[in-house]
Amino acid sequence: MDIKTKLLASAEKVENFLSHLLTTDDKDIISLYASMRYSTMAGGKRIRPFLTLSVAEMLGARAQDAVYFAAAVEMVHTYSLIHDDLPSMDNDTLRRGKPTNHVVYGEATATLAGDALLTGAFELICAAPLPDKAKLEAVRTLSEAAGAEGMVGGQIMDLAAEEKEISLETLLKTHSLKTGAMITASVRLGMLAAGVTDEETLHALTAYARYLGLAFQIVDDVLDAVGDEQTLGKPIGSDSEQGKTTFLHFFTPEEAMQYAERLTESAKAAIAPFAGNETLTDLADYLLARRA
Amino acid sequence: MDIKTKLLASAEKVENFLSHLLTTDDKDIISLYASMRYSTMAGGKRIRPFLTLSVAEMLGARAQDAVYFAAAVEMVHTYSLIHDDLPSMDNDTLRRGKPTNHVVYGEATATLAGDALLTGAFELICAAPLPDKAKLEAVRTLSEAAGAEGMVGGQIMDLAAEEKEISLETLLKTHSLKTGAMITASVRLGMLAAGVTDEETLHALTAYARYLGLAFQIVDDVLDAVGDEQTLGKPIGSDSEQGKTTFLHFFTPEEAMQYAERLTESAKAAIAPFAGNETLTDLADYLLARRA
Repeated sequence: MDIKTKLLASAEKVENFLSHLLTTDDKDIISLYASMRYSTMAGGKRIRPFLTLSVAEMLGARAQDAVYFAAAVEMVHTYSLIHDDLPSMDNDTLRRGKPTNHVVYGEATATLAGDALLTGAFELICAAPLPDKAKLEAVRTLSEAAGAEGMVGGQIMDLAAEEKEISLETLLKTHSLKTGAMITASVRLGMLAAGVTDEETLHALTAYARYLGLAFQIVDDVLDAVGDEQTLGKPIGSDSEQGKTTFLHFFTPEEAMQYAERLTESAKAAIAPFAGNETLTDLADYLLARRA
Repeated sequence: MDIKTKLLASAEKVENFLSHLLTTDDKDIISLYASMRYSTMAGGKRIRPFLTLSVAEMLGARAQDAVYFAAAVEMVHTYSLIHDDLPSMDNDTLRRGKPTNHVVYGEATATLAGDALLTGAFELICAAPLPDKAKLEAVRTLSEAAGAEGMVGGQIMDLAAEEKEISLETLLKTHSLKTGAMITASVRLGMLAAGVTDEETLHALTAYARYLGLAFQIVDDVLDAVGDEQTLGKPIGSDSEQGKTTFLHFFTPEEAMQYAERLTESAKAAIAPFAGNETLTDLADYLLARRA
């Protein structure tokens, strides 16, 4: 199977799981569930759960166990997108070519849908058919990555960076917190699902995640500036219009892509020692070459 | 020690713990921490952590262990207040006589501070010096109580109830989800901190929490309608002005207080068999007689 087929198969698995999870017969809270489902089922590359499932598979876990952790990661990611899109934050009305959550359901419901997805991620981890120790460690890993010293901290830095110039160092830290922490957590949850906790594997897979996450963000910035609007599903140049400092403030698109290539090579080198690393290796190449 | 002194001592313990926890040296995220601290340290009765600590103490836990769970409960409660106060939700500009979080820090930071407090609560549970099994069960209990089928579900019902008449049954369900679920979770986290999991204790303490929670809400509605503005720290009649259906839509203030008295008696009866139940008994009486 090539990486594109693997990504689609993994996304389908996670989406089926989430679709089953995000249902209710209770008419009093059905609008909340509709809002949660809307953004959760709105497509996307599903990179984070793919990382969890691929690492878990490489290390010998069963997909039907690991999917609980993978889906939890995606719920946290979806919550962050809903809140980031709110008028008081990035004020985005389109995501992946569709109206954002608050445009469809209103700000109040969108805020609460995000809250419920974040909370539900921890509930889901507890429900996984995995040992208590692995589940508690997954809660710790995910909460650290998503919280004030992780993703939310990155979002605060991102907001502070609007309309003012920031240094490359600050930009790197912002991405490390805002997206890097959750990508690293996705990989670690795959380890935990497989019951693997040794320092050597942790070190190697963390390095892979960090290189991959940064390369991903650099390619994002390049695509936002010079990509194809139709393929991306959002207007070109929206970052610079919002006054955001991106990697293209410090590099030409060509330099940025060379940087992303070097990071991709480092990511692949970090996991070279592992048997069955093809999926993770192919993913790194795929994300570098993507057009959306 | 009388109950008022106990409440103050418990609040001080939880506030000291949270004050220590909610600090950072990182100037890039210091505005996020300032916003988190502002609402967390804004006072309040600290009923929920008091329940956790009192149940834990009654069942033999050490306060220095249980305070982790108590503080986690208060963090979730604080996040819910910050998000509830947002302009898109209840649009409240004053809470406990002070400007609400978004008035001071802006909507974006307030939203993120709420997100970070919710996430941090689960991180804090993982850090407790308690057995893994108790911590995982605490994550499960807290996430269920706070999520779509608990507090967030109650908030969705609350929003749906604005500007339209709802039945007493719907009002009871709204409160059961919006405040009852977290009060029950507070009590259960006290049990978990003490390592007590038997069905009989769970049943009795859950009954106590449910009666207490409902009585609390009824007294709240009565105070909102006929209380003293200065003592309450918010304008009288704000619920009915917002078009919200309260218990006073179905009962006179006198009838409502009689209802709250009966619930308080039931709460006390539920915990009558337990040795050392004085604190929980006194709390029920205190909450019934409060003026703010």
